[in-house]
Parts: sequence; structure tokens; C-alpha cells
Amino acid sequence: MKELVNRIEKDGRILGEDVLKVDSFLTHQVDPLLIKQVGYRFASHFAEAKVSKIVTLETSGIAPAVFAAEKLGVPLIIARKSKSLTMKEELLTSSVYSFTKQETNQISISSKFLSKEDHVLIIDDFLANGQAAKGLIELCSQAGATVEAVGIVIEKSFQEGRQLIEDMGTNVVSLARIASLGDGAISFLEGDA
Amino acid sequence: MKELVNRIEKDGRILGEDVLKVDSFLTHQVDPLLIKQVGYRFASHFAEAKVSKIVTLETSGIAPAVFAAEKLGVPLIIARKSKSLTMKEELLTSSVYSFTKQETNQISISSKFLSKEDHVLIIDDFLANGQAAKGLIELCSQAGATVEAVGIVIEKSFQEGRQLIEDMGTNVVSLARIASLGDGAISFLEGDA
Repeated sequence: MKELVNRIEKDGRILGEDVLKVDSFLTHQVDPLLIKQVGYRFASHFAEAKVSKIVTLETSGIAPAVFAAEKLGVPLIIARKSKSLTMKEELLTSSVYSFTKQETNQISISSKFLSKEDHVLIIDDFLANGQAAKGLIELCSQAGATVEAVGIVIEKSFQEGRQLIEDMGTNVVSLARIASLGDGAISFLEGDA
Repeated sequence: MKELVNRIEKDGRILGEDVLKVDSFLTHQVDPLLIKQVGYRFASHFAEAKVSKIVTLETSGIAPAVFAAEKLGVPLIIARKSKSLTMKEELLTSSVYSFTKQETNQISISSKFLSKEDHVLIIDDFLANGQAAKGLIELCSQAGATVEAVGIVIEKSFQEGRQLIEDMGTNVVSLARIASLGDGAISFLEGDA
């Protein structure tokens, strides 16, 4: 997605060979006009798929996911990283290790919101090692739901996430694919949409 | 806001005298069409205010806030509840006690995203005891920014939050105001917008 790649080139900041910081328009401060375009791009790409629910993981995937959900006219489910005291009902749960935060989170969705009738589009901001997407796929599998695809805003294609998800039999659609962050420069692969 | 009140009456679930669960359309599963209307309602209410940034606290405020930000054409800043390893720069920080989760969170915003030139609209999903809104106001004050108002999707008017925020000199605009959850019924006050 050209507008996204242009913005990453303009405002993305490289912190070491692995870390790209896009906190000025996606992860901390959100540019709602760009992120609306991002969400709508997912919606148009999956317009012919029978998506009945979108699933994301708090926090940074919510903004692009809710625009995609609005455009497709389907509910968005926000998987939680910790149980709140008011979540007493039956939960779908999975464990996700975050290399960024160096901690394992239990992620969960109330089981009443996903069923075997559902066709799910998973949307997340980043795909790196694939642990978050894998955990979300596991939640959907527990409900018997079909995962149509994983939609990613920015994929770090030099990490193993895409391979991991494809090896689970799930299609990955990334709007921006980063080949390398080496030598202080961002190089891109062709995006999927 | 009539559509919101109708939806709370239809799908809100009362858990004790203090707790209203709206996880089927706002806090866990999001109805993007309703929440877009909610965000746009804030935008039209504050169209004449000189809002330069919207600030919310992860997680449940993001969806309504990003639609308001998109309509007003201003950035959304998502205050974080814990520091990630990639947030190394100067932070605005405040402490917020959550009665729901019975824990104190440090909330923070990177100081580069707020300045004394900014006029901020704070948006959150719930106003109960007011601790989250108070913390967000404190972050804005640290930056020297002006808080135009606190916009709330659902206010529990029988708790002290509104008074606390108004005593800080900040206007509160709540789309749905709940007078009581007693006797298994939800009773409403007139909303602000």
C-alpha cells in the first residue's frame, strides 16, 4: 500500500536492526486518516471473502481493525491480554510471548462471541515472530471458527512470523513488507495489497 | 444519544448495583456502526471547539475516539498503561487506580506528542470514579496543553467521577448517563449530547 510505505519511509524510525518505531502515526499516536485508508484497504481486499467477524489483539491493532469492521459491516472482537474481574464467563484462552515486552500474556476472548459458523479476519499492526497472530488463530480454532486470513499493517519479513502462520495453513496479507532495517535504512518487499 | 441508550437498554447487562457490562457492542466486541455514530457525535458536538488532539486510554476508548479523530481530522494519542521497551524517550506519566481490576497502573504519553499549543479532547468509554479521566487530564497538564473537555460514552452518574472532573475545572460531555442500576433495571438521566 503506497501511502503506508511512503509514511513509513517518512516517519518510521529505526531502533537497531530489528525494531521499527511508527509511534507517530500507528502505535501511540494514530493518524486517523491514514489508518482509515489502511482499514478500508483490508475491507476492499476481503470484500468477497465471507468475513463475519474481525478479531484483533489490544492495543495497536484496534484502530485499523475498527475501520475495516465498519467498512465490512461486521463486529470487531478485541482479544484481551489479561482477564478483568467482570469477565467471569467461559473464555477462549491462549498464551503469547512478547519479545518486545519480554513477558508471556494470557490472551482471551469470551467464548460467546465466536462460534463454528464464524469466518474470521484477524488484523494486527505488526507481524514479527508471529506469536500474537498464532495465539489469535488458536483462539479462533478453539471456537471452531474458520480463519480466512491474517491481515497485517506492517510485516517484518526478515523475521519468521509469516512462515509460522502460513505453516499453520493461514493466508497472510500484509500492506507493507519490510525486507531489512540494516544499515540505518528501511528496504521494502512488494506488499500483498 | 438515543441510539446508544437504546442499545444499552437492549444489550447492557447489570452485574450488581455498580457494574454494567456492555461487552457485546463496546468493550470487548465492538459494533463498529454504532461506535462510529458515537465517535461522530463527539465530533459534531466539538466541531466549534479548537480541538487539535484527541487523547484516550487503552483499550476500550480507542474505537469511539478514532472515529471522532477521523471526523475532526486530528491525531489520536493512545495513553499506555505500561511502558514498552521501545518507549525510551521522555514520558508524561500519572498513576491511575482501577477499582475494577484492583490495581494501580502507571499511564503515560510520550512527551513529544503533546505541547502547550494543544487543545485536547479526552475520550473514554466509561466514567465511574473518574480516576482514568483525572490521570489523562494530569498528563495533558504536564505538557501545558489545554483540556477542552472530557467526552464519555457511558457515565455512571451515581458515582463520583463527574464531580471530580468538574471540580478540576473540566467540562464533561457524556452521551449516556446512568442514574441507577438498582433493582435489576437501568435508569437514565438526560445525556449531554
